Amino acid sequence: MDEIMEPEEISVGVVGLGLMGSSIVAALLLSGHPVKAVAPLPDELAGASDRILNQIRHAEEADLLSRPLEACLARLTVSGDYGVLHDCRLVLECVTEKIAVKQTVYRKIADAVAGDAVIASNTSAIPISMLQRFVPNPERFMGIHWAEPAYMTRFMEITCGMQTSLERANWAFELAHQWQKEPTLLRKDIRGFVTNRLMYAIYREAFHLVETGAASMDNIDKAFRYDSGSWMTMMGIFRRMDYTGLQDYPEIFRRIFPLLSNSEAVPELMKPLMEKQLRGTQSVQGLYEYTEEEAREWDKAFAVFNKDIFQLAARYPFRTDPRIG
Amino acid sequence: MDEIMEPEEISVGVVGLGLMGSSIVAALLLSGHPVKAVAPLPDELAGASDRILNQIRHAEEADLLSRPLEACLARLTVSGDYGVLHDCRLVLECVTEKIAVKQTVYRKIADAVAGDAVIASNTSAIPISMLQRFVPNPERFMGIHWAEPAYMTRFMEITCGMQTSLERANWAFELAHQWQKEPTLLRKDIRGFVTNRLMYAIYREAFHLVETGAASMDNIDKAFRYDSGSWMTMMGIFRRMDYTGLQDYPEIFRRIFPLLSNSEAVPELMKPLMEKQLRGTQSVQGLYEYTEEEAREWDKAFAVFNKDIFQLAARYPFRTDPRIG
Repeated sequence: MDEIMEPEEISVGVVGLGLMGSSIVAALLLSGHPVKAVAPLPDELAGASDRILNQIRHAEEADLLSRPLEACLARLTVSGDYGVLHDCRLVLECVTEKIAVKQTVYRKIADAVAGDAVIASNTSAIPISMLQRFVPNPERFMGIHWAEPAYMTRFMEITCGMQTSLERANWAFELAHQWQKEPTLLRKDIRGFVTNRLMYAIYREAFHLVETGAASMDNIDKAFRYDSGSWMTMMGIFRRMDYTGLQDYPEIFRRIFPLLSNSEAVPELMKPLMEKQLRGTQSVQGLYEYTEEEAREWDKAFAVFNKDIFQLAARYPFRTDPRIG
Repeated sequence: MDEIMEPEEISVGVVGLGLMGSSIVAALLLSGHPVKAVAPLPDELAGASDRILNQIRHAEEADLLSRPLEACLARLTVSGDYGVLHDCRLVLECVTEKIAVKQTVYRKIADAVAGDAVIASNTSAIPISMLQRFVPNPERFMGIHWAEPAYMTRFMEITCGMQTSLERANWAFELAHQWQKEPTLLRKDIRGFVTNRLMYAIYREAFHLVETGAASMDNIDKAFRYDSGSWMTMMGIFRRMDYTGLQDYPEIFRRIFPLLSNSEAVPELMKPLMEKQLRGTQSVQGLYEYTEEEAREWDKAFAVFNKDIFQLAARYPFRTDPRIG
């Protein structure tokens, strides 16, 4: 098996250079890897180098660069040609969440890399067991799911499909620690992954409350920011229950669970937004409305917040065994 | 109707001096109110003054005192006798979540205060419309739900019952701003309130994932801390959807909603804990196990985290109309 080597000795490929992909490129460069960044679409290739540079500058402003900016950039190759992936030990796919597109991308990656390279998807929606059927060495395929911006979040979900080698998954898990992540390793491939399923349980209930007139979107956002937001980053779900003494939960579960939404339908509220192809702050219209200036303010403020919460979270590590489960 | 007066001119009563009640007392003292604190149980009365003093000292360490500690304490009365409530314009009930107990407490409060005093419950589980039947002036009864520690969280949920006067609710809403809160005002009394219902939707799914072997508690906690925790405090639920572009949600809703837990049962995992009456960090055993030292460390760390996240949240106010809904 591969020994863990220094990042400088491990070329990593990234395919798909949108916002997420370019921030993953930045994260890998910051960690010292040579990075081969491939833009499958000509439009994406055009702006890719600028997007990556912007992300690295953002990281620099947040004091996250442990080596000179030039040294990071010197290890970067940006291309439209999959051939640059030839020496990569690991290739991360972060293209759109369409199965047919991913299938084509995997074929091109597999044609370019050595047979023992690991191929990983950033998908948060499609089962790994399904995707790994599209590669010649499925035991070397897994999910490596990042949170944005990739260089300033500690979240990372490594997910095995049915055919993934646990040894390979452990290799990625160890490597993730070199990227300053707090990874989780899921040995079982579930639909929707962990954090997504929990969030979709919230979305389902949140839309239900709005649609039944119980609360406005604004009230829900506010309540969540100031209530759950006041402990989430430190404790998570179960630890919070322990911390608040456990006593009252069973009775409330018994009363509230039967009242929660069990809807299977896409919320009605979403439908007009979809018809108009609204994109939230990116189109200054979504669930809320924005002025151009407000949309820009959200971007700027979130860039600062990222740094604040990243640093705050780092002061409360509370590590326990991360491999269980 | 009452005009909004200075906090110094408004005596506020607090009934129930456990951890939550004593932290509410501290919050009100910090805001300048004369506070009449009533402990209905002799055991609770014994330690109440110490608990309140500890909370105020904690607030002082966090730089939250805008007046001398002695000036705060000079406005405090602690008693086992409801008679001290006689001049209170507002009385906050925060006793145990048992309806029969609350009914007795409301009768004693109503006997002590003037007819135009507002009585409010800190309940997060019992409908306000039900509780307000136990007071002689139900239009002056409402929910005022705090988050702990009350002097260091911005969350506050003000909930009307069916008979609550909106004018009285607005009075409390205005007053809450003097307590440095970001209150929400719910005109409709729903079972489980907003933030609780959303959290119980998460709990239902989180236990489901553990019970089906998809993930460990530890992985769920970690994923939530580092993923949702990286934006929750700034954005809330719907704003986050706008910020991430809206595009992918409907398809994922369609796929994931039918897979989510619709259980109505108290999770099996909770049952042995209940039989053994475990109390989490308070009994060094719960969903997780703790040494005495670890339990103390959680307490200490959370006290510091409270301050950190309170200050962080204050830098990202993004106020919109909080009364809608």
